[in-house]
Amino acid sequence: MNGKAGSSERNVLFESRLFEVVSILWTNKSTTPLHDHGGSQCFVLVLEGKFENVLDFGNKREVSTFESGQTFSIPVGTKHETQCLTLTGKTLHVYTPKLAQETVKLKFNSENSEELKNKLHLSQATPFEELKDLLDVMKKESISSGSPYFMNQLFSGSFPQMLMAEEFIAATKTTLATFEASPVLSAVENEVIEELSCLIGWEKRSGIAVPGGSAANFMAVHCARQNLFPKTKREGLDGRNLCVFVSAEAHYSFKKACAVLGLGMDNVISVPVDHKGRMKPEALDGLIQKVRDQSKVPLMVSATFGTTVLGAFDQVDELSRICKKHKIWLHVDGAWGGPALFSKKLRHLACGIENADSMTFDAHKLLGANLTSSFFLTKHPQILLEANDVADGDYLFHSDDPALDRGKLSWQCGRKAEAMSFWTIWKSMGTEGIGEFIDGLIGLRDEITAWIKMHPRLELIHMPDYLNVCVRVLSLDGAKDPEWSKIVRERLKEKNLVFVNYSSDTNGTFLRLILANPFLNFSHLEQILRWALEET
Amino acid sequence: MNGKAGSSERNVLFESRLFEVVSILWTNKSTTPLHDHGGSQCFVLVLEGKFENVLDFGNKREVSTFESGQTFSIPVGTKHETQCLTLTGKTLHVYTPKLAQETVKLKFNSENSEELKNKLHLSQATPFEELKDLLDVMKKESISSGSPYFMNQLFSGSFPQMLMAEEFIAATKTTLATFEASPVLSAVENEVIEELSCLIGWEKRSGIAVPGGSAANFMAVHCARQNLFPKTKREGLDGRNLCVFVSAEAHYSFKKACAVLGLGMDNVISVPVDHKGRMKPEALDGLIQKVRDQSKVPLMVSATFGTTVLGAFDQVDELSRICKKHKIWLHVDGAWGGPALFSKKLRHLACGIENADSMTFDAHKLLGANLTSSFFLTKHPQILLEANDVADGDYLFHSDDPALDRGKLSWQCGRKAEAMSFWTIWKSMGTEGIGEFIDGLIGLRDEITAWIKMHPRLELIHMPDYLNVCVRVLSLDGAKDPEWSKIVRERLKEKNLVFVNYSSDTNGTFLRLILANPFLNFSHLEQILRWALEET
Repeated sequence: MNGKAGSSERNVLFESRLFEVVSILWTNKSTTPLHDHGGSQCFVLVLEGKFENVLDFGNKREVSTFESGQTFSIPVGTKHETQCLTLTGKTLHVYTPKLAQETVKLKFNSENSEELKNKLHLSQATPFEELKDLLDVMKKESISSGSPYFMNQLFSGSFPQMLMAEEFIAATKTTLATFEASPVLSAVENEVIEELSCLIGWEKRSGIAVPGGSAANFMAVHCARQNLFPKTKREGLDGRNLCVFVSAEAHYSFKKACAVLGLGMDNVISVPVDHKGRMKPEALDGLIQKVRDQSKVPLMVSATFGTTVLGAFDQVDELSRICKKHKIWLHVDGAWGGPALFSKKLRHLACGIENADSMTFDAHKLLGANLTSSFFLTKHPQILLEANDVADGDYLFHSDDPALDRGKLSWQCGRKAEAMSFWTIWKSMGTEGIGEFIDGLIGLRDEITAWIKMHPRLELIHMPDYLNVCVRVLSLDGAKDPEWSKIVRERLKEKNLVFVNYSSDTNGTFLRLILANPFLNFSHLEQILRWALEET
Repeated sequence: MNGKAGSSERNVLFESRLFEVVSILWTNKSTTPLHDHGGSQCFVLVLEGKFENVLDFGNKREVSTFESGQTFSIPVGTKHETQCLTLTGKTLHVYTPKLAQETVKLKFNSENSEELKNKLHLSQATPFEELKDLLDVMKKESISSGSPYFMNQLFSGSFPQMLMAEEFIAATKTTLATFEASPVLSAVENEVIEELSCLIGWEKRSGIAVPGGSAANFMAVHCARQNLFPKTKREGLDGRNLCVFVSAEAHYSFKKACAVLGLGMDNVISVPVDHKGRMKPEALDGLIQKVRDQSKVPLMVSATFGTTVLGAFDQVDELSRICKKHKIWLHVDGAWGGPALFSKKLRHLACGIENADSMTFDAHKLLGANLTSSFFLTKHPQILLEANDVADGDYLFHSDDPALDRGKLSWQCGRKAEAMSFWTIWKSMGTEGIGEFIDGLIGLRDEITAWIKMHPRLELIHMPDYLNVCVRVLSLDGAKDPEWSKIVRERLKEKNLVFVNYSSDTNGTFLRLILANPFLNFSHLEQILRWALEET
């Protein structure tokens, strides 16, 4: 946390683990550098003089001036710079306890589970007043996704609005089961589902927030089954083989879903992919016919928007024609790639999405909401009620209007407001603002892929359609040690420099850079690759 | 928020929507009343004099003295009183933005969904700097569980430790899928599961945090099936009827589970209950035999600890003998009643629990953790891995030790740290402290049931074993209007006085008081009933 004052004089009035109160004496034109306060919220009271404050939200800047007696605040995680416009000036600053993610120093490495347990005394009781200190120590031992150098998962960091939403949820602590227990949050969830469905282009729509993208994929299989075999709900499965078709690059949650739902994971049919990692439509068509010939039932096709490794987008337009022909439910797993709907540069990847029957959408990955913030969306307005309402729970559901009591659409009873942090982000950035954020990352991607292609010791695995940049690091002698990228990955992690994931193809392992962190810039990406190249 | 100063002089130095800084001049022996600061954290710097501060944590009080230059803070939601020990004194107080639940004034009533959406402009973009104001308005329109007068659900309020845990989770924002992405939180989850299993009395154990009690019940059916028919995972269900036995008072989530898992909700067999709402063991035995005679397969019995209406505890000791005889998986749904394990006064209700195969435990209900904080626990150490690992997700799971990567035991991939808020509460209160908290509520229950029995216009529905107090309000003429309690309930809610749920028996509706809020005392309970009696 630097730059609390520029060249001006800074006096700490009092300071504790919780708060800091500082007065600053300014001379004319003295300016702070552009800076943030990490997880602290900063509150400024102008005591003398006139000041200009610039708030930098990443996608936009806002300039305001303040005079003696006026106050302004810098939201958590937001950058700002302040300039004194008068000959001299005086300000009083209060810094709150940290509320947000640290974006600077991070630990990427940890002891094993048993060591951690002992080191942190996880089992031992601790007086309330020492809890905060213990949690601070634990935080230092934790992996945090706040840093732009964290790209091990398909998420990194978050927008500061998320914290305001979390505060709201904790302050109200209620459940989304019924409208009477959560009128506002039920309306917020409904609003997010309506708006996402509009982006997809569905006239009729329904949906429910679920705890993670896997849960949304589970719900897709469940709804497809309800649609084709409504009797299953009461009577159970009759022993026929119901098959779910996904690309060879699809998420493993479909196997889990079919195991859980009683379909059996052997009935998940893996469809070959092309050089870009996209499901081959003609192969799908053939496999559906083959399954039919074996007297099995093709239940559902799931297209992937944004595969985990290459970020590939299955061509939903072509797949929808095949599904229509065979009368099969078409789902789109957009857990990672769904946000492409917001972007002018990427929208073409989703061509034909309006023909899908349902979609998985995660806001905690690319869109910086809190984990988890996931949605199952469908164009069949009644299917969730038909599939999930058991016309029971009289002790709880008293409403005459079942549409209001969203718990009837869910597998959960007590349910956290998954929609709230995403709604808060969407609300303040707007649809266009989110699009601009994504397009900014696409710009970064184009810069770094150009940089990689110029470098003799880096091999770009493919030209990415989305925000996964897969790159193989060649060892110093130019030989393609098949394990080299993995070794580099482990070393960078051990040194607490970068936490990046890896995968492999027939030529060996490679690094997978994920462009998602709201505070990511080109120099982070360049730095990661320079560090990777330094390993010999 | 009252009592910031006793008889002393209080000067507001500055005040904003975010902060308040106050100086207080004290005279000898002036004392504040015992008070809290709602959701604010209060930080005090002693400028002159000597002070005694008493922190009241509900279950214990701590006394400390502070001299000039020393600081102390009052944790969110904690009550305190401060006394000046010197002739005069001077203190500086900083109050933070509210972080916790309001416990005083609450709204229990709302417009309909469409009205709310329009009134709050849910669809319209809002600049970042106006978000906080909007969220404040939305909070005023929300139902909050913070008040002791909120008892509509099987939870009410929360312990302030929960907020420290939520801050931790938001600050790190990572996923519980793998140890390398969440070493500390994985260890915390493991610790909670170990400790809960110890309370149950299992030597071998395993478990996983899940998004809510329903999800834990789903997992129970799934594990029972994996245990009996391991081939289902790969091949799917073969069409046989697998039956799940629950009491007539059990939670509706078992019907949902059987619908989702492909067993069919008609295969949930409802077992009659006795006058206390407990499953009749001999009826269970007969129904299992009957199902066998129909060539169906008895898969699982689920006993309930704490039914939703009466708070009944099925007699797990007797049920376990029947399950052993028939070789059936015995699950215990302890979503509401599980915390009885912590209480010396209630532990007898769980007699025989160590014979169960698995258990559902919610910490967000009675134990004041954030919603949701739920656990599926089992004494079969391998069953979760066998049931849920699909040996896939190479892009994610790189560990050689599958026990570390807890995602392999789960249905979720990205997963929030459900265990963290409960661990933080447990850690600071200790097992004994939680027991004392529960025993305190039992004391309240005994007082209020005695009060009810004395009152001519109140009818106690049953002598509660647990923390549900069901009471019928008789209308003024003494007639038992079957709908009267429901009418009273609606009126109290409309007036924003009390949000209490109702249910019914053959004699009509009655109120269900839930004793769970950490700040609940006898006068709240008495007040609720007095208000109910005032309605005529």
